[in-house]
Amino acid sequence: MNAVTDTFRNGVDREKMFATLDLIKAQPELARFQFRATNRWISGAHNRSTIKAFYGAGAEDASRTEAFELDAAEPEILLGANDGPNPVEYLLHSLAACLTISIAYVATARGVELTAIESTLAGDLDARGAFGLSDEPRNGFEHIHASFRVTGNAPEEKIREVVERARQRSAVYDIVTNGVPVAIEVAVG
Amino acid sequence: MNAVTDTFRNGVDREKMFATLDLIKAQPELARFQFRATNRWISGAHNRSTIKAFYGAGAEDASRTEAFELDAAEPEILLGANDGPNPVEYLLHSLAACLTISIAYVATARGVELTAIESTLAGDLDARGAFGLSDEPRNGFEHIHASFRVTGNAPEEKIREVVERARQRSAVYDIVTNGVPVAIEVAVG
Repeated sequence: MNAVTDTFRNGVDREKMFATLDLIKAQPELARFQFRATNRWISGAHNRSTIKAFYGAGAEDASRTEAFELDAAEPEILLGANDGPNPVEYLLHSLAACLTISIAYVATARGVELTAIESTLAGDLDARGAFGLSDEPRNGFEHIHASFRVTGNAPEEKIREVVERARQRSAVYDIVTNGVPVAIEVAVG
Repeated sequence: MNAVTDTFRNGVDREKMFATLDLIKAQPELARFQFRATNRWISGAHNRSTIKAFYGAGAEDASRTEAFELDAAEPEILLGANDGPNPVEYLLHSLAACLTISIAYVATARGVELTAIESTLAGDLDARGAFGLSDEPRNGFEHIHASFRVTGNAPEEKIREVVERARQRSAVYDIVTNGVPVAIEVAVG
């Protein structure tokens, strides 16, 4: 093994991880982040977000040379043309991705070598809410069920502790379970 | 104008929209939907979701011939390699997309012809929460600010009413502002 394989675990640079944590401990203002998405309607249900710039660690990020573009839409049964996943499917992806990254990072910090993280998330809703046909069902998911399978070179109990810690520290799990205030400003014309 | 341009408005089939609403009014059980995402960790922060099947209108959907694949990751400053947008950026996209579709659909139902819907969403967070360095800042966004610009062939007041109704009926706005219970089941090995 060379120095590179020694510091990397689970594809994460452990030395950089611990240096980052030390830096934020010393200068907590570096932990301020602002993430952004800009969206443009195309036609019908079809719309596209552009994601590139964000603020973090005291500066605007310059690491991304190209923007990410994400198409969203609805399936035909919801009056779209399947030009992309729909918004609630993107929300499930956001939650799955955040929990998965959290598991990978916590495992790395604790010296656990992972071989797989797989998950399936499902969310149930009654579309009468979003269609405006009833005030009784809420518009969004009534509940989300996430089923994870995690494998690694540690005893089951230790892997379960990693997943539990990841849940406790996941940004999107916090947002989705606790909610967050959203202010909407509208300009017309 | 032919029959096709008469029924379509804003790229949405109005006849199909009203027929769908009538059908759900008559058979509310058709409004039950379950959406899903399956995620697989690749390495480090990099992971990928596959989105295809869902249940709705009394059956498994068969309209999607191919699955959507979404890559998520983190930027370098958050110990990733920019292999995709990060989870909280996906959440902003999910919210932007849902509000945009809701605006397009409400406008269509009310006979308003839109020419543009553009939005920028920004979310602020203190990464000490997600990094496990402090219990004081929450893990997720403290607040989200959405700035919309909407143009169409109706008086400003009517367009503002469309946007307000869309906000009231958006599935993701409901989830993100009010929260939803998430159950996590873990299998090890």
